[in-house]
Amino acid sequence: MKILEIAKRARSAALKMSNVSTDKKNQAILEIAKEINKVRLKLQEINESDVNVATKNRLQASLLKRLKLSDSKIDDIIKGLESLADLEDPVGKTLYSIEMDQGLELFKVSCPIGVIGAIFESRPDALVQISSLCLKSGNAVILKGGSEAKRTNQFLSELIREKISQSSVIPKDSIQLIDTRADVKKLLELDEYVDLIIPRGSSSLVKFIKDNSKIPVLGHTEGICHEYVDKDADLNMAIEICYDAKIQYPAVCNAMETLLVHKDIAKQFLPMIAKKYEAEKIELRGDTKTRKILPKIKKASEKDWRTEYLDLILSIKIVESLQEAIDHINYYGSHHTDGIITNNEDSARKFLNEVDSAVVLHNASTRFSDGYRFGFGAEVGISTEKIHARGPMGLDGLVSYKYIIKGNGQIVSSYMGKNAKQFTHKSQNKIWNSAAMRD
Amino acid sequence: MKILEIAKRARSAALKMSNVSTDKKNQAILEIAKEINKVRLKLQEINESDVNVATKNRLQASLLKRLKLSDSKIDDIIKGLESLADLEDPVGKTLYSIEMDQGLELFKVSCPIGVIGAIFESRPDALVQISSLCLKSGNAVILKGGSEAKRTNQFLSELIREKISQSSVIPKDSIQLIDTRADVKKLLELDEYVDLIIPRGSSSLVKFIKDNSKIPVLGHTEGICHEYVDKDADLNMAIEICYDAKIQYPAVCNAMETLLVHKDIAKQFLPMIAKKYEAEKIELRGDTKTRKILPKIKKASEKDWRTEYLDLILSIKIVESLQEAIDHINYYGSHHTDGIITNNEDSARKFLNEVDSAVVLHNASTRFSDGYRFGFGAEVGISTEKIHARGPMGLDGLVSYKYIIKGNGQIVSSYMGKNAKQFTHKSQNKIWNSAAMRD
Repeated sequence: MKILEIAKRARSAALKMSNVSTDKKNQAILEIAKEINKVRLKLQEINESDVNVATKNRLQASLLKRLKLSDSKIDDIIKGLESLADLEDPVGKTLYSIEMDQGLELFKVSCPIGVIGAIFESRPDALVQISSLCLKSGNAVILKGGSEAKRTNQFLSELIREKISQSSVIPKDSIQLIDTRADVKKLLELDEYVDLIIPRGSSSLVKFIKDNSKIPVLGHTEGICHEYVDKDADLNMAIEICYDAKIQYPAVCNAMETLLVHKDIAKQFLPMIAKKYEAEKIELRGDTKTRKILPKIKKASEKDWRTEYLDLILSIKIVESLQEAIDHINYYGSHHTDGIITNNEDSARKFLNEVDSAVVLHNASTRFSDGYRFGFGAEVGISTEKIHARGPMGLDGLVSYKYIIKGNGQIVSSYMGKNAKQFTHKSQNKIWNSAAMRD
Repeated sequence: MKILEIAKRARSAALKMSNVSTDKKNQAILEIAKEINKVRLKLQEINESDVNVATKNRLQASLLKRLKLSDSKIDDIIKGLESLADLEDPVGKTLYSIEMDQGLELFKVSCPIGVIGAIFESRPDALVQISSLCLKSGNAVILKGGSEAKRTNQFLSELIREKISQSSVIPKDSIQLIDTRADVKKLLELDEYVDLIIPRGSSSLVKFIKDNSKIPVLGHTEGICHEYVDKDADLNMAIEICYDAKIQYPAVCNAMETLLVHKDIAKQFLPMIAKKYEAEKIELRGDTKTRKILPKIKKASEKDWRTEYLDLILSIKIVESLQEAIDHINYYGSHHTDGIITNNEDSARKFLNEVDSAVVLHNASTRFSDGYRFGFGAEVGISTEKIHARGPMGLDGLVSYKYIIKGNGQIVSSYMGKNAKQFTHKSQNKIWNSAAMRD
């Protein structure tokens, strides 16, 4: 099918989706979970053929691992769907309500965004997660997965389409799969039909999409995350946190890439943490001052402060002051996740207020920056945009809102000129009841 | 100054702005109001020279009127500033807060977006409105006004820069003016420094900007607004509303452009409303069925259903059902503002739920779709985007948020593997107190 036709079908499905009741959506999500459990052997057989082709094509071991649907991964997919069904419906919430004048009421009510284009990497479990998040939030979605997972994605998307269409109110075309990079490029032009593009993948993929899209893009570019160890830090706590932030999972976006240390505690702190890092074979790169304390480590260049290693490498810089730490992070960082370790509440507050990042932390590891840990249940991704949704994005990032006005014949000219009626603009606690009409 | 340098200065000013207290911001806004009052004669003299040049250049009468700063317009500017100072600060609000685990708290707190590029039309009062909205919401702004208002804009922006810099905490460069279209084009490339572009002006300007920007754009394209008169409408009410929606101010985006009428009441309703419209010299254009009832009016073509006239022209269509009305609006409309007139609550609810527009109304004129009437005090514009801000945009549209985590040494590895600690994810009513550090 042509990509324009796919986009038109998605738009038409989206208009229907906005009106599906919570019950019907949850029922469909649970049906999908049941069906995946039922056909798990077949699913694994198909996945195996993707894995075999990828092995022949010498896909990296780490990507192969992501591609493979083990029994425990399928269990996680099913559990994820079940917990998504339990979450509150993000659609139809009254965000606020006022009386504009007697008998003239204004409601701000959450509603789906419409059509979402989701472009993601090799993990086929991402397909289920993104489809079900879009389903729960009443959006139609056009999916493009990694080509290595082609057969698995095809099977899973057909399974989901089959199950939702059994509900009789959720259109099959609210979930559609596209195949090629060329299709993606065409999709990015169709701003008349697609409301939002969400890319999950490498920085270069996200940049390509942002540079080529007429549609708004919510993605994250990089996670150049910092921990700053202040002069008033508890150094034992700092060691625990800096170890966790770097080592617990170095390949992810919320791992620490640069460690900033206040000059007053550097001589004491750096040898302690360096010992722990070296035991884990972390390559350290320091500025001139750091290398006076740790003479054996490599020299950090200007480029290091801007690099997301996603690897067992860490750059270290000694700063003169809290202000220098804040300035360094705002200048070199990627506005993703940054932490301060200190027992001084004033310093913490200054850091948390002035560091311009989606997530800022006081005395905790950067690795907490994550939708699951935030309690969002499921996560669409972590946005480094400041528009619409910032940081870990759950269901709330997938909705927009509309204003609903209920009157009894009011016209604007009564509120103009001499003897104009006055608006009251009184806030009220009324809830908009949209449920009545939703199937 | 080069545009790159201007953008860098704005970025650096924005980082300081995010930390300015409500009091200082309000004080600066009131100082600007006082100063404008003080120099009003000089301001009018300078504005007069813009008006003279524009008159020589044969600017349209309606644009000349917008350009001219009459005494009453200056009064309105001053009143607008005073009421803006009274509005709640949109920055630093705790949007929610949870306990992730004992001693580990998460706060979602509103914060400024950062650097905003605002491109607007000839009215110099827009310069004051946009600058002061950005000031109140803690953003830095780069302004490009209409070239006809060059001298007035220069004078006003210098006045504002002078006054805010007297506060000693608000940087002068949080408000900067640029001059040429070429500058705008360069600005649209600087996504590293500018977070959001807000265009106010013609559809073609907004489209040009959307097509050429690497930065997110929040604008409105068109207002193709509808009223649908249902078979269960109170026809006298329908006449009042349809008259107001078309005639009260036809040149604005929330005026009605297409009237949809249910077939069952068309014979009775159309001659009544046509009589009122014809008295006002409205040109009517109807579909075939409409012209059977109103044989003298012009034929509406397919193009009419997609046209924002902004003029004394109205297209009329008879529909078979509520569903056809909804489908017509979703297909041909611009998702701006659309209303239904009916005494049937079920029909109203279906319309309000299913019409995919920023503002939907029941028994009221489309002309109510406006920030002032909504009680927002001031308005940045009306967004037809579904991302970030939709519909009339007040101060709330000018903020983003950040997540703040307070811990006491927590690391992620404690929450993994065997004996993993569990997250509690308990919601709590705590407010994040950022004020302490804000000057």
